[in-house]
Amino acid sequence: MQPLGKGYNSHCLCLDFESRVIPQESLRSVEILPRGTHCKSTEVIARLVSGQKICLNPSVAWVRKLVRYMMEKEAQQRA
Amino acid sequence: MQPLGKGYNSHCLCLDFESRVIPQESLRSVEILPRGTHCKSTEVIARLVSGQKICLNPSVAWVRKLVRYMMEKEAQQRA
Repeated sequence: MQPLGKGYNSHCLCLDFESRVIPQESLRSVEILPRGTHCKSTEVIARLVSGQKICLNPSVAWVRKLVRYMMEKEAQQRA
Repeated sequence: MQPLGKGYNSHCLCLDFESRVIPQESLRSVEILPRGTHCKSTEVIARLVSGQKICLNPSVAWVRKLVRYMMEKEAQQRA
């Protein structure tokens, strides 16, 4: 994935996607950037505990499950 | 929300939550930080087009709907 350039949001950030499933424990965060004038696709960028940033494909099932799991896990914990 | 200190992930980042619903168009990104040794709660940080960062409560319905909508919108567009 190319380094995040200065013009952070003046264009799409992701040129290609990581296809391998990322183990939860190596994830520091997942950032979702909605599509807009700067980029016609929603982008999902995972930041690993190593500090590395990788692009995930938002329309792939395991990526969507990952995001849903992260959100649901919190809700269950507080319920 | 206090500024993101140097020790970015050595503790929870969110001390309080923004309760007002954030209009989609003012959102630049939403970052989900899973709970871990650094913080016992999942945290959701919205970055606004203004550059401001605000904490959202991950167990509140509209926040979860927002994240789900951002992910689903992409899937529908590519279907």
